[in-house]
Amino acid sequence: MEMSKAANVPFQIVRTHHAELRVRDLEAARTFYVDLLGFVETERTADALYLRGLEEAYHHSLVLRLSDRAACDHIAFKVATPADVEAARAHFEARGFPVRVLGSGEELGQGGSVRVQDPMGFPMEFFYEMDNAESHLRRFDRYRGAFPMRLDHVNIFVADAQAAHEYYTDGLGFRCSEYTETDREPRRIWGSWLHRKDSVHDIATTNGDGPRLHHLGFWVQDTASVLRACDILAAAGFGDSIERGPGRHGISNAFFLYLRDPDRHRIELYTGDYLTADPDLAPLRWSVADPKRGTFWGHKAPASWFEEGTPVVSILSGENMPVRSPVLGDRPDFAT
Amino acid sequence: MEMSKAANVPFQIVRTHHAELRVRDLEAARTFYVDLLGFVETERTADALYLRGLEEAYHHSLVLRLSDRAACDHIAFKVATPADVEAARAHFEARGFPVRVLGSGEELGQGGSVRVQDPMGFPMEFFYEMDNAESHLRRFDRYRGAFPMRLDHVNIFVADAQAAHEYYTDGLGFRCSEYTETDREPRRIWGSWLHRKDSVHDIATTNGDGPRLHHLGFWVQDTASVLRACDILAAAGFGDSIERGPGRHGISNAFFLYLRDPDRHRIELYTGDYLTADPDLAPLRWSVADPKRGTFWGHKAPASWFEEGTPVVSILSGENMPVRSPVLGDRPDFAT
Amino acid sequence: MEMSKAANVPFQIVRTHHAELRVRDLEAARTFYVDLLGFVETERTADALYLRGLEEAYHHSLVLRLSDRAACDHIAFKVATPADVEAARAHFEARGFPVRVLGSGEELGQGGSVRVQDPMGFPMEFFYEMDNAESHLRRFDRYRGAFPMRLDHVNIFVADAQAAHEYYTDGLGFRCSEYTETDREPRRIWGSWLHRKDSVHDIATTNGDGPRLHHLGFWVQDTASVLRACDILAAAGFGDSIERGPGRHGISNAFFLYLRDPDRHRIELYTGDYLTADPDLAPLRWSVADPKRGTFWGHKAPASWFEEGTPVVSILSGENMPVRSPVLGDRPDFAT
Amino acid sequence: MEMSKAANVPFQIVRTHHAELRVRDLEAARTFYVDLLGFVETERTADALYLRGLEEAYHHSLVLRLSDRAACDHIAFKVATPADVEAARAHFEARGFPVRVLGSGEELGQGGSVRVQDPMGFPMEFFYEMDNAESHLRRFDRYRGAFPMRLDHVNIFVADAQAAHEYYTDGLGFRCSEYTETDREPRRIWGSWLHRKDSVHDIATTNGDGPRLHHLGFWVQDTASVLRACDILAAAGFGDSIERGPGRHGISNAFFLYLRDPDRHRIELYTGDYLTADPDLAPLRWSVADPKRGTFWGHKAPASWFEEGTPVVSILSGENMPVRSPVLGDRPDFAT
Repeated sequence: MEMSKAANVPFQIVRTHHAELRVRDLEAARTFYVDLLGFVETERTADALYLRGLEEAYHHSLVLRLSDRAACDHIAFKVATPADVEAARAHFEARGFPVRVLGSGEELGQGGSVRVQDPMGFPMEFFYEMDNAESHLRRFDRYRGAFPMRLDHVNIFVADAQAAHEYYTDGLGFRCSEYTETDREPRRIWGSWLHRKDSVHDIATTNGDGPRLHHLGFWVQDTASVLRACDILAAAGFGDSIERGPGRHGISNAFFLYLRDPDRHRIELYTGDYLTADPDLAPLRWSVADPKRGTFWGHKAPASWFEEGTPVVSILSGENMPVRSPVLGDRPDFAT
Repeated sequence: MEMSKAANVPFQIVRTHHAELRVRDLEAARTFYVDLLGFVETERTADALYLRGLEEAYHHSLVLRLSDRAACDHIAFKVATPADVEAARAHFEARGFPVRVLGSGEELGQGGSVRVQDPMGFPMEFFYEMDNAESHLRRFDRYRGAFPMRLDHVNIFVADAQAAHEYYTDGLGFRCSEYTETDREPRRIWGSWLHRKDSVHDIATTNGDGPRLHHLGFWVQDTASVLRACDILAAAGFGDSIERGPGRHGISNAFFLYLRDPDRHRIELYTGDYLTADPDLAPLRWSVADPKRGTFWGHKAPASWFEEGTPVVSILSGENMPVRSPVLGDRPDFAT
Repeated sequence: MEMSKAANVPFQIVRTHHAELRVRDLEAARTFYVDLLGFVETERTADALYLRGLEEAYHHSLVLRLSDRAACDHIAFKVATPADVEAARAHFEARGFPVRVLGSGEELGQGGSVRVQDPMGFPMEFFYEMDNAESHLRRFDRYRGAFPMRLDHVNIFVADAQAAHEYYTDGLGFRCSEYTETDREPRRIWGSWLHRKDSVHDIATTNGDGPRLHHLGFWVQDTASVLRACDILAAAGFGDSIERGPGRHGISNAFFLYLRDPDRHRIELYTGDYLTADPDLAPLRWSVADPKRGTFWGHKAPASWFEEGTPVVSILSGENMPVRSPVLGDRPDFAT
Repeated sequence: MEMSKAANVPFQIVRTHHAELRVRDLEAARTFYVDLLGFVETERTADALYLRGLEEAYHHSLVLRLSDRAACDHIAFKVATPADVEAARAHFEARGFPVRVLGSGEELGQGGSVRVQDPMGFPMEFFYEMDNAESHLRRFDRYRGAFPMRLDHVNIFVADAQAAHEYYTDGLGFRCSEYTETDREPRRIWGSWLHRKDSVHDIATTNGDGPRLHHLGFWVQDTASVLRACDILAAAGFGDSIERGPGRHGISNAFFLYLRDPDRHRIELYTGDYLTADPDLAPLRWSVADPKRGTFWGHKAPASWFEEGTPVVSILSGENMPVRSPVLGDRPDFAT
């Protein structure tokens, strides 16, 4: 694979910033995220919770909104300047994708933004401005649970991982840190770890029924925080929420834990990572057949991890977007 | 030094079990021990708090009692059988030391006991029976603060450390794991780490104005718990409570932190240690002039750590016991 | 279950002290234990390696001896006095069990000892004296791999777990800290955690084809050491040695990892535990049907963990001892 | 303070990448950095060692060169494109600063570069290309010592901290994450934490006799690595190298340890930090009189930490650059 360079980016994305999930029971969600995992509650309305991690100095990185079904409402990217919000609108409108402009405050705590249904069907938001909130970074007396620090990345199911890779790199200027690829010719990308900030990823793609959300990844400071999350959840009767891990990914060198929240949304607690600031850092290739890419220590992932995901909604109708089967049938045998 | 063997022990001590401190402000003490450090509150009365560590399955390991002054009311040892309580009474009465017999429940949650003023002037209690309480060992959802697990040991100032060593080993059957000694002949013990349970110590002696309590040592599971205590205390405005550390002792290999509670009682958060079960494990000698014994990394201890301590009370009058100056003048220069 | 008290113990055991395993390739064993896990090599002969953990101040806690097959040669208990070695000999001879007396130095570095084939068929050694070796506890510059500190316990497969429990408690004075039991009447013990030193266990019994060794458990200081072992082994191409974990046991509150060495002997890296010094500490009952007893977080153990073990040898013939099937058929469904 | 925005940056810096120190004894330096701290040795010549951290995929982040005196030869910044090297040359030449152009390979393993004596007198290098080396990120079997992952930042003594701040922000496009400032009007910057990559800093300035190097900061993954460094150094007889810490900075939230290498160069082992990707993240102001900025837990820094530093050399003559006294006399009392 020759890694593409972003030549003419229509607008500049800074990083993955927040996401909004639809949940069926706000109290259950609050117990899970705030009481057990330790997220900070910035604000609560009749139908939504606005949460942030301990180091985050903004109104929210996770919105949980009461709904009749579990779904992903949208994923939001911070852009570099207010003008980039407008540039994003123009870009998607010119190409005929659904676009919705939100005024300041339509999303609580946030300035004006634009939401689009992107080429793969995902509900994506681009914004610049958000209200500040107190960072709890140095409020160690308020650390609870797993000590979640910040939203790090999102991972999405896409039906065509090669196309998704090209869209994010050529189209939006993401850099690829690592990728999985089929071995037979012509080689095709099976998954891709893509970043704007100087970490392994802001967004990762996984080959599967898409568009769907695979998981939200939250950064924790150390492996002890990941283990503590397991202990706390099991002690509180939430052992069923532990889906995979703790363990080490080959890809990204992450020490990971995958949890399913009360609505079966998947979140990852994640530490490890490495610096990807250098523009000539070569992407690391993994064969899709190499089991170490997924689990460095050799444990198999459960089938649910490869198969289950969260539907995403239409930014216009609010209904779930239809999904299509993946282009690639090369599911590794450890993923059956 | 030839280590003495306990030939005829008058009664069998199992371990150091709990202590009672007098404090001037119960609310302040509760904030420090429960809210910030994470001790479990078993029971609260008008004038006392009964606390335990996370793994402890008994009513209390620390009693904080409202008083007009800060002092140590008594230190309590668990004995091996109910008959050992009676044997302890007979032993001290026969030797003419002050003895006070307490009926069941006189100390809340505890069976009958005997309190004595021991040969060095300390108020010591011997008991067998205490009410059970739920161990929070597996209640990870209730872990808070520094995750204090259990009382590990007490450290006392004694005016004659050689005599104290002989009293505990020959007299009461403690084994010595490590000791500090003067270098010139005749060599004299300056401090001694003495155990009944299979750890480095249940009680340690320090050469100084005695009888006084130097500190209570509480066990935590890992170094991260010690560092977290510093972060929490500083964030909550209790930075002044940090007296010494975190650091590594040469003696006992402990990773330590010394705190001063709101009444200036000193407590240690402690992890490290090693197994001392083997009866022929040779005591480790340290020269009192070796700075590594105290701080393996080379940091100096503050003068307060060598000079300040908690008065102990008379079991009969309740007044503070008079103290006398140490026999040994060999204060190491790092202790001036 | 009413826990039995040891009334008349024929000799006093201090703790589980060391074990000798037969291996087919000493170099492979050395790579695994010394180079990767970080054990200290005390001495090496043409056909054996004598290893110890970082804190251990004795010649060996693990002997690996070249053989034509993988087996457990013997498990050794330290006794309280030299006279207890002789008392052990007399005890087993009087009851007609096979006994073998070893002179000083017959086992390298060790004083005189007695080996017996115990009532369940295990090759057990009782000794008092062993050469000292330098403890590496404070030699942090020599810490390598998983930082193994000391042998903590052995776990054995026994065909009759109820009988094994009674033998160790009534017969040899072990105390039971935790046990698993069938739920239907009459209730029968399925596994038992038994200690002489002040920790959860020196020996644990597991219902299964016995006599066989299930595993040797080595103490590490923190969870990070356990995770580091996984990372190191996987990086060095020994990922296959990871059988189960890392994870949390409900029983004993251990944070565990089970490895299979190059001869498929199973060892555990273990941290967690709690103090069991108090003689009236009530044993903790677990139903054999409670999955949390084994894996607090809910992961299933692999079938190999319940089925595979190391044969033990006859102290007289050196041949493997025959095994018999367990009395209890109540295998929990997660153990099939 | 109104934070300046970089409008027209003459060339784009990616991050602080490596540094070269002059040392008087290569063997002593190798023992310290490679054997004890665990740096990876990429290459060794007759007069130099080329080292990298465990995650670094480039030839070196630290060069130690044999010399008759301890000094800092140069600090190197990675730029975004090869053209930026040329742009840097043009920029400094046009302003009359000393410039030296190096061909590919003049610095071993590195492509062409330009070195300048910057406005404050520092020997700074700008380069784009360096040979790849194997990242040891996933080679856990080779992790040793403190597990140093990568060079994170440099900290420099400057005589005029306000001017240095403006030079880096307005002149070179660095963003300020945190700063210390005098309290009386007109307020003046006393220290500044400045970044190009998405962390707290690539370079920090400290008010003092300048130009001198204060320290090189290396990233480690967790607090345990910092503590392990103390234990290892003390055990190996290098306890004198521990100058300050371990502790917590208020500024940057770093968990820190300051070491003095055998040539008394200061290095920091550093973990903590937080994400600074958002362009509108407000710089955090600290009063120079607030002791928490330096040591969150309240410990005083030693005088040496404020006073001692490494001379920097002239890129033309190779002689030490002269230093001048700081403009600000407001040394905080804890810094005397």
